Amino acid sequence: MSTKLSDLHTPCFLVDLQKVQQNCDHMIETCRKLNIKLRPHTKTHKTIEAAILQTKGSKRCIAVSTLAEAEFYAENGFDDILLAYPITADKINRCLALTIKLQKFHVMVSGLEGLECLETHAQFLPKEKFWSLFLDIDVGYGRTGFLWDGGDILDAAVRVNNNSLQLRLEQLYVHCGNSYGVKTSSERIKLQETNIHRLQQLQKRLMNYGFNCTYGVGSTPTCSLPIEDNKVLAEFHPGNYVFYDYMQHLFGSCRESNIACRVMTRVIAHKPEKNIIVVDCGWMALGLDGKMERPLDFCLIQGENNLRLLDMTQEIGKIVAKEGELDCRLYPVGMILYIIPFHSCCTSSLHAEYQIHNGDDVVATWKPVRGW
Amino acid sequence: MSTKLSDLHTPCFLVDLQKVQQNCDHMIETCRKLNIKLRPHTKTHKTIEAAILQTKGSKRCIAVSTLAEAEFYAENGFDDILLAYPITADKINRCLALTIKLQKFHVMVSGLEGLECLETHAQFLPKEKFWSLFLDIDVGYGRTGFLWDGGDILDAAVRVNNNSLQLRLEQLYVHCGNSYGVKTSSERIKLQETNIHRLQQLQKRLMNYGFNCTYGVGSTPTCSLPIEDNKVLAEFHPGNYVFYDYMQHLFGSCRESNIACRVMTRVIAHKPEKNIIVVDCGWMALGLDGKMERPLDFCLIQGENNLRLLDMTQEIGKIVAKEGELDCRLYPVGMILYIIPFHSCCTSSLHAEYQIHNGDDVVATWKPVRGW
Repeated sequence: MSTKLSDLHTPCFLVDLQKVQQNCDHMIETCRKLNIKLRPHTKTHKTIEAAILQTKGSKRCIAVSTLAEAEFYAENGFDDILLAYPITADKINRCLALTIKLQKFHVMVSGLEGLECLETHAQFLPKEKFWSLFLDIDVGYGRTGFLWDGGDILDAAVRVNNNSLQLRLEQLYVHCGNSYGVKTSSERIKLQETNIHRLQQLQKRLMNYGFNCTYGVGSTPTCSLPIEDNKVLAEFHPGNYVFYDYMQHLFGSCRESNIACRVMTRVIAHKPEKNIIVVDCGWMALGLDGKMERPLDFCLIQGENNLRLLDMTQEIGKIVAKEGELDCRLYPVGMILYIIPFHSCCTSSLHAEYQIHNGDDVVATWKPVRGW
Repeated sequence: MSTKLSDLHTPCFLVDLQKVQQNCDHMIETCRKLNIKLRPHTKTHKTIEAAILQTKGSKRCIAVSTLAEAEFYAENGFDDILLAYPITADKINRCLALTIKLQKFHVMVSGLEGLECLETHAQFLPKEKFWSLFLDIDVGYGRTGFLWDGGDILDAAVRVNNNSLQLRLEQLYVHCGNSYGVKTSSERIKLQETNIHRLQQLQKRLMNYGFNCTYGVGSTPTCSLPIEDNKVLAEFHPGNYVFYDYMQHLFGSCRESNIACRVMTRVIAHKPEKNIIVVDCGWMALGLDGKMERPLDFCLIQGENNLRLLDMTQEIGKIVAKEGELDCRLYPVGMILYIIPFHSCCTSSLHAEYQIHNGDDVVATWKPVRGW
């Protein structure tokens, strides 16, 4: 007999296999139509299984957020892996091993220090190997990367050119994380246009130095809702779209029904005198990202629009009614509720395994890689 | 050659072994002086090694927050384990197995539904076994438990009495989580007095029914700074004191130098035009508990009082100066910084292993149990 959702211990992290499949296929189709290469990011799920769906089985061309992910995927037959994280000296030995092991391993350079550290360690590369570089470009997000209109990026380009045996420029990489800060679709479109315009200007500047660069962008909001201008891009590298979440739904990146992950929880007690039902989902199972920005409504309780997860401690959540009184008899102890998280990257990171289901049947368990 | 802190990959979770030892010994001594049994809670660290220090090697008499912890400790030679979490039907089979396996396994009953579910499953207990009960009492925190002045607790007592072969009342259990809500030591003392006064009144009411109950309380702020009245208690069950954290320091539970855990991080980039240094510690390594309440200062950067962790994304933190400009040359790429977390229970939960150090030497790796 197959395991049913109701057989599972709570709290647990549920992943709807059909929805993940649909989300992955849809992004592949979006890229196909735009004629852009998809380099899916694995940071949201960190599993072999979802990365296989993201790459339609090829196990080629992914972006990862940690060295632990890079090594995990490399050990499991993946190749053409970009460590989409600023390279620093403390990571160089593990990156060297990956460069030697894989056909294609790419490091991301976010500043001249990063380049210098690659130059210093280039002597340890085997003869046929070189550092394959993605240059991290800051077109306005302001987190990491070469300023798109600064001088350092030109210095970097010249230095790469002067050492073309050991350093090869693969692409300019932009994470438009500021797409998470805009409120409307017209603002988002404007942001995308600005980003591309700036990349094109940088491309022209680099051409004057003899570089013909391609460039790619990430972020699920921009890739889920691409604009025509995106056709000039070489790569998309979104990650969150695999699961989506309430935040993406609020951005308009997806419908509520596209969200592929939930936390399953049970009612464990009532506090009728306080109009509260207590569930076995605290911040240990759901996480807290988004709670500061949306203290009242940072998650959804599926199918229960009048319920609100008001507060959490480590292992306990308190649910109240948004309006009117809560009759606890409608939510008996033992009843299962499903919470749609605000940020799936945060929620998934708290779970050592994901319960994969097809409708009501639990069909698999996926184990993500953790650590750094 | 021994591994040094500076050899470690970042971000990572550091635990100062001497400080943990001191914190554990100090709590043992506090309880000895008050003549109170210490039942340390393991939820903050979830490791075998720290639980051994908490129990001074006896491996007896602990409280845990999840069934996964209970099973982990039971498999590793611990006994006299309290699952300090409301018992519900979905957990009953695993609790039954623990009751059979251990000399002493205690379940916590937070309402009449919990009691009913134990009664229903009592038939599966072997002859010599019984359900050992801690009754969860709400003396004002308002999360879970029988109201101290309500009628349900009396019903529960009578029902336990009527089935004394299968149900044995071990203790009244109070988690005074509201001690986390008070701002001053006089308020905290008043809260402790109120809690004890209410427990004494409940004890009297129960005595009228023929019950002579002992009772215990938890929460690190109240146990770290006990009052004379606490001598009437049977047990203390604090947990956080093993590591302490910035929150406890703000409460006055400990000095900054007692805090035994930190996240080690490295500078990975600069944004001089924004007066920012970028580190490899995002919310994936530090967590977000406390950020809503203290958006600006929810953690400390050890020894760098003018630095502030302003903002985090998944794997990246942005550090700014509280006053004046930040000269990035003082914090070169690669430099190590230590972040003292707001809530160690939250931060530790994000790490699959802890790096244990004695001064600058890494002396062990502890692996916590995860899941539910």
